[in-house]
Amino acid sequence: MKALVLSSGGADSTVCVALAVEKLGRENVATVSFEYGQKHDRELICAQKIADFYSLKHFVLSLENILKFSDCSLLKNSTQAIEHKSYADQIAEKGEGKVSTYVPFRNGLMLSSAAALAQSIYPEEDCEIWIGAHADDAAGQAYADCSSEFTQAMNQAISIGTYGLVKLAAPLVKFNKARVIKEGLRLKVPFELTWSCYEGHEKACGKCGTCIDRLNAFEENGVKDPIPYEE
Amino acid sequence: MKALVLSSGGADSTVCVALAVEKLGRENVATVSFEYGQKHDRELICAQKIADFYSLKHFVLSLENILKFSDCSLLKNSTQAIEHKSYADQIAEKGEGKVSTYVPFRNGLMLSSAAALAQSIYPEEDCEIWIGAHADDAAGQAYADCSSEFTQAMNQAISIGTYGLVKLAAPLVKFNKARVIKEGLRLKVPFELTWSCYEGHEKACGKCGTCIDRLNAFEENGVKDPIPYEE
Repeated sequence: MKALVLSSGGADSTVCVALAVEKLGRENVATVSFEYGQKHDRELICAQKIADFYSLKHFVLSLENILKFSDCSLLKNSTQAIEHKSYADQIAEKGEGKVSTYVPFRNGLMLSSAAALAQSIYPEEDCEIWIGAHADDAAGQAYADCSSEFTQAMNQAISIGTYGLVKLAAPLVKFNKARVIKEGLRLKVPFELTWSCYEGHEKACGKCGTCIDRLNAFEENGVKDPIPYEE
Repeated sequence: MKALVLSSGGADSTVCVALAVEKLGRENVATVSFEYGQKHDRELICAQKIADFYSLKHFVLSLENILKFSDCSLLKNSTQAIEHKSYADQIAEKGEGKVSTYVPFRNGLMLSSAAALAQSIYPEEDCEIWIGAHADDAAGQAYADCSSEFTQAMNQAISIGTYGLVKLAAPLVKFNKARVIKEGLRLKVPFELTWSCYEGHEKACGKCGTCIDRLNAFEENGVKDPIPYEE
């Protein structure tokens, strides 16, 4: 059994990498990151560092062409700035889910691309695609493509479309972010190498949705987040 | 309601285009084609001609980067030649499905990309992604990603992942190829503008899996296929 872990260089997907290595051994694990036209490349640099840390083969695929018509605030061609609010506050303000950092069907694109990659590099072998989606990202429909209903449906589609060879694993999908960090602490994940912030500054901004979630999650574990934040 | 029709420039997807135009009106229909590193660009040229014929907006997205590790015989970097046999004969010979022209999870990639495109260009509107998958392509598991089980699972994933705004329509999924052509004849589809052959010669080869299927389907309808074939 092989595993291909979606690695964004962030905390959640790095916990996923560590779990896959624990379960299957590093010789059976590879990581894959995506260029999708994001405003900065810090997450791609971190994903490479994580792969190096665990001595894993690392792939980079580009979705930039597919997303060229999107105005999502995470993309460099967007007219929108990144909001400095928690997801919960953004949803409360708009009265509905779908935050401005929702990249159109991104998880569907990444999972489909990883399935195609798995069938390309391991055409005859069983392979699991691991994704670090967790419950807080799906809460209030902030990101509809992070829910367990979504990963279950994608698992079904990918399994059928690859002759049963490729399946999904979403080990964190029922966890909140604090529980994800707890799992990472158990696994001695090198959180100092990860990057979550939506901004691409020298230090993490501490104010965007994902920074707020990350800081709270470390605090709930009584541990200081090892990456530097702006004052 | 908008429709985005996957258009390969072939017979099946062009029947799908005609059906979408009949149902929703051309002002609500657009087409999308994919560059995925195929050996020839005849299908892309034909897809543009079909869009022009129906006066539809036409998008072209590239999956080439995602499929760069594949050795599928349809791709220009492949070491494999295209087989000059029917799908049924290929499957009988190998004793299993998955023909050599199966592009890794291609329909999953195309549907996910179309869903992302729909959410980019119609962020607040209902949109159907139309796909011309039909029963003969799924028969014997030649293409696992053409079955109705597959399109149902993808519909589920896409609907959940796009806040219920994007759905799939696979109107031909239970039809055999002859029934697809019959539907096209009813709709006066310009079959002379379409291209199905896997080879990129001046005329269709008449010998690859898709040529054999197409010729048989026209014959079953008692109609001559209007495109020229090699002797």
